[in-house]
Amino acid sequence: MTEYDLIVIGAGAVGENVADRAVQGGLSAVLVEAELVGGECSYWACMPSKALLRSGSALRAARRVAGAREAVTGDLDVRAVLDRRNAFTSNWSDAGQVDWVRGAGIDLVRGHARFTGPKRIEVTGEDGTVTELVARHAVCVSVGTDPKIPDIPGLAEANPWGSREATSAQEVPASLAILGGGVVASEMATAWATLGSRVTLIARSGLLEGMEPFAGEAVERSLRELGVDVRLHTATERVTRSEDGVHIELGTGESVTASEVLVATGRTPRTGDLGLETIGLTPGDWLRVDDTLQVEGFDWLYATGDVNHRALLTHQGKYQARAAGDVIAARARGLAVSDAPWGTHVATADHATVPQVTFTDPEVASVGLTARQAEEAGYDTRVVDYEIGWVAGASVHADDYAGTARMVVDESRGVLLGVTFVGPDVSEMLQAATIAIVGEVPIERLWHAVPAYPTVNEVWLRLLEAYGRPGAEARTPA
Amino acid sequence: MTEYDLIVIGAGAVGENVADRAVQGGLSAVLVEAELVGGECSYWACMPSKALLRSGSALRAARRVAGAREAVTGDLDVRAVLDRRNAFTSNWSDAGQVDWVRGAGIDLVRGHARFTGPKRIEVTGEDGTVTELVARHAVCVSVGTDPKIPDIPGLAEANPWGSREATSAQEVPASLAILGGGVVASEMATAWATLGSRVTLIARSGLLEGMEPFAGEAVERSLRELGVDVRLHTATERVTRSEDGVHIELGTGESVTASEVLVATGRTPRTGDLGLETIGLTPGDWLRVDDTLQVEGFDWLYATGDVNHRALLTHQGKYQARAAGDVIAARARGLAVSDAPWGTHVATADHATVPQVTFTDPEVASVGLTARQAEEAGYDTRVVDYEIGWVAGASVHADDYAGTARMVVDESRGVLLGVTFVGPDVSEMLQAATIAIVGEVPIERLWHAVPAYPTVNEVWLRLLEAYGRPGAEARTPA
Repeated sequence: MTEYDLIVIGAGAVGENVADRAVQGGLSAVLVEAELVGGECSYWACMPSKALLRSGSALRAARRVAGAREAVTGDLDVRAVLDRRNAFTSNWSDAGQVDWVRGAGIDLVRGHARFTGPKRIEVTGEDGTVTELVARHAVCVSVGTDPKIPDIPGLAEANPWGSREATSAQEVPASLAILGGGVVASEMATAWATLGSRVTLIARSGLLEGMEPFAGEAVERSLRELGVDVRLHTATERVTRSEDGVHIELGTGESVTASEVLVATGRTPRTGDLGLETIGLTPGDWLRVDDTLQVEGFDWLYATGDVNHRALLTHQGKYQARAAGDVIAARARGLAVSDAPWGTHVATADHATVPQVTFTDPEVASVGLTARQAEEAGYDTRVVDYEIGWVAGASVHADDYAGTARMVVDESRGVLLGVTFVGPDVSEMLQAATIAIVGEVPIERLWHAVPAYPTVNEVWLRLLEAYGRPGAEARTPA
Repeated sequence: MTEYDLIVIGAGAVGENVADRAVQGGLSAVLVEAELVGGECSYWACMPSKALLRSGSALRAARRVAGAREAVTGDLDVRAVLDRRNAFTSNWSDAGQVDWVRGAGIDLVRGHARFTGPKRIEVTGEDGTVTELVARHAVCVSVGTDPKIPDIPGLAEANPWGSREATSAQEVPASLAILGGGVVASEMATAWATLGSRVTLIARSGLLEGMEPFAGEAVERSLRELGVDVRLHTATERVTRSEDGVHIELGTGESVTASEVLVATGRTPRTGDLGLETIGLTPGDWLRVDDTLQVEGFDWLYATGDVNHRALLTHQGKYQARAAGDVIAARARGLAVSDAPWGTHVATADHATVPQVTFTDPEVASVGLTARQAEEAGYDTRVVDYEIGWVAGASVHADDYAGTARMVVDESRGVLLGVTFVGPDVSEMLQAATIAIVGEVPIERLWHAVPAYPTVNEVWLRLLEAYGRPGAEARTPA
């Protein structure tokens, strides 16, 4: 039995950060990991998916500019793209990450963790050895999620791809059916269609629902241009796999046959086999936490990343991890806790200021509330849209640049609630919006944040001009 | 004799904006322009220079990513680049801009403007016709600058290129010598070397002085890789043009011969022939203004853009134009003037928060004070650097991404004073820094502005981590 100040279950990017911050704060910490240290993001999500997408994106950008276009006389080198993706995942070896963990002064136990009681964890290694761990101060669950397989007859038996198979496949399937209309479905449709697969996207819903409507509309158009067969608001009734591939019967009476089927219809927490029942929680549940990432009803249990269901994004999980690691250390050492909104020890940004980039073509970059969310939340809102292609910097960036920017204003406070950019290469434009919203920078001050000319960011000026300058002409006489 | 509330001399982007804002504020306004409506930026600066640069930049970006690289089997199409540049300048026709002026309710008088006394302007048209204009409330001078030809024997007689010739040339010179080490010199060396010219850059100073030192160093390396012969800290003694081209004798005793020579050694205000003597000012001087852009000692005279020497950048001139147009309207109508720092009617950002992008390879994007400027200004500063290539998003963006980010912190207030990014495709990352600095967003709050993963913007997190989180561990016990 080994004792640590902190036990972190799950050594993905999020768990690593919790342990790292706690160790920097003076605690001893151990990471428990059943699979690869570095987790989903490093091996089966963000990194490999963006690696699959980036080469096509760079090539499209060059093709969009006269003078450069003429030099692109060859095709995307599919093998080189897959090899580059393999390099980013270190061919699914976690040796480098293990080195990092050691260097950070964190212990590592490999195996499957289960609670045996409060602060007590039993780790079963691959070879069956059992390690008993006890936490002096805290346990943090950072186990992430698995794809949720919807209850469609035959689907589970058809050996479907999840996000892991979709990001790690070593060959391009001749054809790929994708079930789902969210970020993973949209990105993987873009990636595999660009790499030459014949892709059909089937979604019960629309595309990218929950974002501004023009996001899904633009991505749908581009997917169709890429040759993707897009079937929205379409139910899947039955799936069967035969020698010819996967046969998918739709609610419309039509059917689709593909080499593989990817299920991208949502995520489910990896809490089914954690021994949660020994501490009074229900296996399979999401773990509800407060803003310090402490699980409700516990003073020693924390949950960070996807498993707490606050914001299923790596960067947001790492953000939670920083707060959690710091607050665990502060509480353990009896130091002051900064848990007012926007304090050091809280993940305030999770509530209404979460940034997200979808690496489709066009890219979708959004932060904060959509117009609809803001209205439903009761804000006195005003919505301003601007066509990014009208900006001089955009027209230089790409011929016939097509994109849309929206800002949602809280009229009562004169600050931004949400910003969405849809267009080629908008991903790096998002941080400005995130800082404006999180920083609660008044619109009146944003007029002084001059965008450099001619960049695409001049859309900020255009949005402000479309909004109008409060006080410029409407002031009462002196 | 025609009377207007406002006369604006110079119909570049800056003058257009002054007039537009004043008209929106209820005034009548006339623009006077001796050359093309739209001015330097539209025809001989920002737009054509960026158009010359963008195709090469897009192609380089594709070549930097395995998978895309292999598809770039051809060369940059130089004719297509020049044609694209010509399209952006509408082949140097201002018909579209004239339409815009009319549509905005602004009158236009073509010809050369000279003061004949306070508020009185005489415009001499190309055909010799003279128009007399009188301003009821204000005159705004927005005439911009010309290249300053340094006092080097033979240079003026050698028929050198200025920025106009460098941005509008219809053929690629076999070889080009560039005198200067600033933004124009660096960008034009990048552009013409990429387009196939044999470029020699000769600067009395270093490269991009006034920016963070690593900016000039990185651009110097890349220029050399592009094949540019870079001669820094080198004086030019004499220039002669013969049938073989331009012969340049250097202070080192060496000499350079090139088809053309571009002078990019600074700018001089276009105030030499404005009749300034009739209103008690000195022809050829810069026009010193207060923060409402009012010329010192006058209650009716304004100067916006390059001519006031506050910040010689189109976007900053347009920023001044918005303040000036609005305050001219407010004063004319007897409305309240918002002239406290960061008010509606002042160009506060000119002082220490000016953004600038240099579209070299790598790009240089900077805003606010450099480390040296901040120290010289007496701030209690801390400087944090981070290699952008270490960011996951950068490594996905480009193989072997090389770049540097620096933030300069005001330790006493816990806010940023300056940020510089040097690296491929950093130009759209600048607006985030501009908003953080102009918005005076506390560092403690910036921790909550989460960069999306995996974008290059994750460098924000790395900079903050390198800085350390105030209050995370250093707080006193509760």
